Amino acid sequence: MRAKADVLQTPEKEDPMQENAGLGAFFSPRSVAIVGASSDPKKPGHTAMKNLISMGYKGNVFPINPREDSILGYQCYKNTLDIPEPVDLCVLLVSAELTLTVAAELVERKSRFHDVTGAICMSAGFAELNTSEAKQREQELVRILKAASIRLIGPNCLGVIDTRSGFNTNFDIPSYPQGGISILTQSGAFANSYLFWAEGLRLIGLSKFASIGNMADVSMGELLTLLKADDATRVIGIYLEGLQNPREFFEIARQVSAVKPIVVMKTGKSGPGSTATLFHTGSVSGIDAIYENNFKQAGIIRARTVLEFFDTLRAFERQPIPAGNRVCVLTHMGGPGTICIDEISTIPDLQLARFSAETSTALKSICAPMANVGHPDGYVDLTAAHYPKLHNEVLQILFREKSVDLVLQILAPSAFIDQNLIAEEIAAACESQTGRKKPFLNAVTFGSFALDARRGLENAGLPTFEYPDMLARVAGNIVGYALFRKKTGAKDLG
Amino acid sequence: MRAKADVLQTPEKEDPMQENAGLGAFFSPRSVAIVGASSDPKKPGHTAMKNLISMGYKGNVFPINPREDSILGYQCYKNTLDIPEPVDLCVLLVSAELTLTVAAELVERKSRFHDVTGAICMSAGFAELNTSEAKQREQELVRILKAASIRLIGPNCLGVIDTRSGFNTNFDIPSYPQGGISILTQSGAFANSYLFWAEGLRLIGLSKFASIGNMADVSMGELLTLLKADDATRVIGIYLEGLQNPREFFEIARQVSAVKPIVVMKTGKSGPGSTATLFHTGSVSGIDAIYENNFKQAGIIRARTVLEFFDTLRAFERQPIPAGNRVCVLTHMGGPGTICIDEISTIPDLQLARFSAETSTALKSICAPMANVGHPDGYVDLTAAHYPKLHNEVLQILFREKSVDLVLQILAPSAFIDQNLIAEEIAAACESQTGRKKPFLNAVTFGSFALDARRGLENAGLPTFEYPDMLARVAGNIVGYALFRKKTGAKDLG
Repeated sequence: MRAKADVLQTPEKEDPMQENAGLGAFFSPRSVAIVGASSDPKKPGHTAMKNLISMGYKGNVFPINPREDSILGYQCYKNTLDIPEPVDLCVLLVSAELTLTVAAELVERKSRFHDVTGAICMSAGFAELNTSEAKQREQELVRILKAASIRLIGPNCLGVIDTRSGFNTNFDIPSYPQGGISILTQSGAFANSYLFWAEGLRLIGLSKFASIGNMADVSMGELLTLLKADDATRVIGIYLEGLQNPREFFEIARQVSAVKPIVVMKTGKSGPGSTATLFHTGSVSGIDAIYENNFKQAGIIRARTVLEFFDTLRAFERQPIPAGNRVCVLTHMGGPGTICIDEISTIPDLQLARFSAETSTALKSICAPMANVGHPDGYVDLTAAHYPKLHNEVLQILFREKSVDLVLQILAPSAFIDQNLIAEEIAAACESQTGRKKPFLNAVTFGSFALDARRGLENAGLPTFEYPDMLARVAGNIVGYALFRKKTGAKDLG
Repeated sequence: MRAKADVLQTPEKEDPMQENAGLGAFFSPRSVAIVGASSDPKKPGHTAMKNLISMGYKGNVFPINPREDSILGYQCYKNTLDIPEPVDLCVLLVSAELTLTVAAELVERKSRFHDVTGAICMSAGFAELNTSEAKQREQELVRILKAASIRLIGPNCLGVIDTRSGFNTNFDIPSYPQGGISILTQSGAFANSYLFWAEGLRLIGLSKFASIGNMADVSMGELLTLLKADDATRVIGIYLEGLQNPREFFEIARQVSAVKPIVVMKTGKSGPGSTATLFHTGSVSGIDAIYENNFKQAGIIRARTVLEFFDTLRAFERQPIPAGNRVCVLTHMGGPGTICIDEISTIPDLQLARFSAETSTALKSICAPMANVGHPDGYVDLTAAHYPKLHNEVLQILFREKSVDLVLQILAPSAFIDQNLIAEEIAAACESQTGRKKPFLNAVTFGSFALDARRGLENAGLPTFEYPDMLARVAGNIVGYALFRKKTGAKDLG
């Protein structure tokens, strides 16, 4: 049997998480009981526990299952009352009916040992069923735990991941690269889809993840407050169906937006969609126009599509906030370049940069005679007569040009191009920037043929995208956030 | 030195291509001269010739280069006049200036040998430069060739691919799987981006590809006529910047739409975008609202984004045209399901199906108690309590339900699911359909984690997508086409 951690971890006093209304225990609990842990690899109670261990969580782990002696090398207990050491957090993976019994047991335990601070209820079968019985069950669960000041995440969720503490209750994600994106979601599957989508090319890194399902107790707003104080979180992505306390949420969100960007995917926009949210998380999705207006007021960027949500978060994670809204586009492909220019033209927040005479002359002197410099403003099409070193030289000129606040590039490495070399030249141009860095977003087309170029750019910390029109939308979103900050007098992030 | 084809291919009289105003020679020429062929692997004149051979083209190939004796095993000629055998088509890969000289030479050759029917000019340096000199050069090129009835594709393009004849002038694409999509494009890079994008998972198969650049002679309309008659072409994708003769194009397009769908990506929508098209292909992009209206009248589906263009073509290639507009959505993930329902609700052409009492009862009898059947109409969320066989059973019920015209599914194979098995069960349900088949579109989330499930579905001929909202948009597009056909009384394709 595997040895448990020798010493009970002492909470560090300077840890800001511990000061956050006790919610820190959800992300880095000193110890955790898993009710419904299992030796059966086909059960969520098995993989959740396996993933917890594989992420490197260092606290004590106490599986609870009356029919097992040990699970994955950890001693098993019949119930939470039997655990002879302090229990900070409890993960609930049993049926909705049994959940209430365990909740009462946790209250009993807390009265005896003064330990349990939080519970994550992953089980479904509560308000989302939309029967009065199930709704009552959820209210009862909250009532029982609240009486003992035990906070609850869920029910009907995938729980939590924290890539720093290694704490992880997610069935499907065994581990994840650390990074600057944090996610709050009412749909575990939606958020997991993002994590898996980005995984192959390591397109994102994660700080914290909270799937909070029906949000019966711990709210989006409270978790936003926690993420505001989390230095590792550069940007917050939210999947939202409906809020019980919109006023609280938007007040907090406004404060968070002054410090770091929030990107939201809000569903239940339509009548049928709001029926779907009601039966998914019991959420009342509200009037969409009111949400839309509140998002704007709070500086929250609302994505129009799933891919825009995915891609906007990536841009914020890896690139700085622009100083202004003037954009230029570099490409060697007239069609994709035109698509990007067209999309930029639909976004009121964006403006095409006007090159100075100096910049135009400098560009023309190094580009092929048939290259297009400045038609329209802010546009450079190198045509097929491009080569790796030219990208470096052109980008250096664009980064130096005063009228340019952010640079977009659309790239497709044809068979004549050394993909690693072109990625190096582009990265070198970005690194050569002095003073305030300008955001740089690159759409690499040519799919799997272009993987080396994409990987090279991603490894250099440069986010890559796939579609030239999405590049414009992402640019519009990061500029929209920059303009919000300017308008509200938030501290300049340059 | 490699032997040339022993016998000159005899044109088959029943080949419909040969009857098409001589344009058939662009896709299956009996022989081809490549002016500007090269032994240098870094030159387009090398890869274009290499790709031609690697696709299995069986006609005679005559490289032209005064400084080489043989290229890739083929005897090289100093100029086109020296070729001792008939030349059907000529590919031009030399500078714009030299192109005019070669054009005059081709006319001379034709007067002597009565052979050359077409030329593909891939070189840039013509009207897209927007100088009077360059525009004149393009007019001169057309004038010279027209006088000898030599048709011209280009200039400023990537030429042609025909996966059946094996004829291929594309620098970047050495070969491609055969299939039902044909592409006409003013941007070679845009079309190549699609081919490469789809290649990894073999998401599409290609029939014909024509990159026609500046369209100085052979027009989109003429090529549409050719594709109308091409039995292998199930759907046509067009990237368009502007038309010289819109009336001709839209008249032909209306006739083509009566037989097979056309999907278009039209750029130059904005002022800056139209400047970009002018300097890319010399195209005047026109007033977008007029184009928009003409697309609608002609039954052409206009994609709003690059990805919508890519995905809509795929759906048409692999799935039937629906009999009506009533859609149902099957998922086991409430968030992605809700996103899809929301998007459906924004598309006037789509309607959520209303299950009969029988269907609802049948579904509820096999789904878990916490599953959501019919909230909203046409929606089934199996929740996490799903397994491969259940998908088969539920899909069979949905396919049988009379109120359903097309079925959408959103799938994410969690760690507990055998991905090959779930793909098999889904394919089995599709195959069990009797009578008129209903279109079935599947969004598989979970990225590279879900590759086996995606591959399994694609291998069974079922197109897979990545985003639940795009699933709705694609469904809207194929339903839009079905409604156009109904309205115009076109033959039912069921």
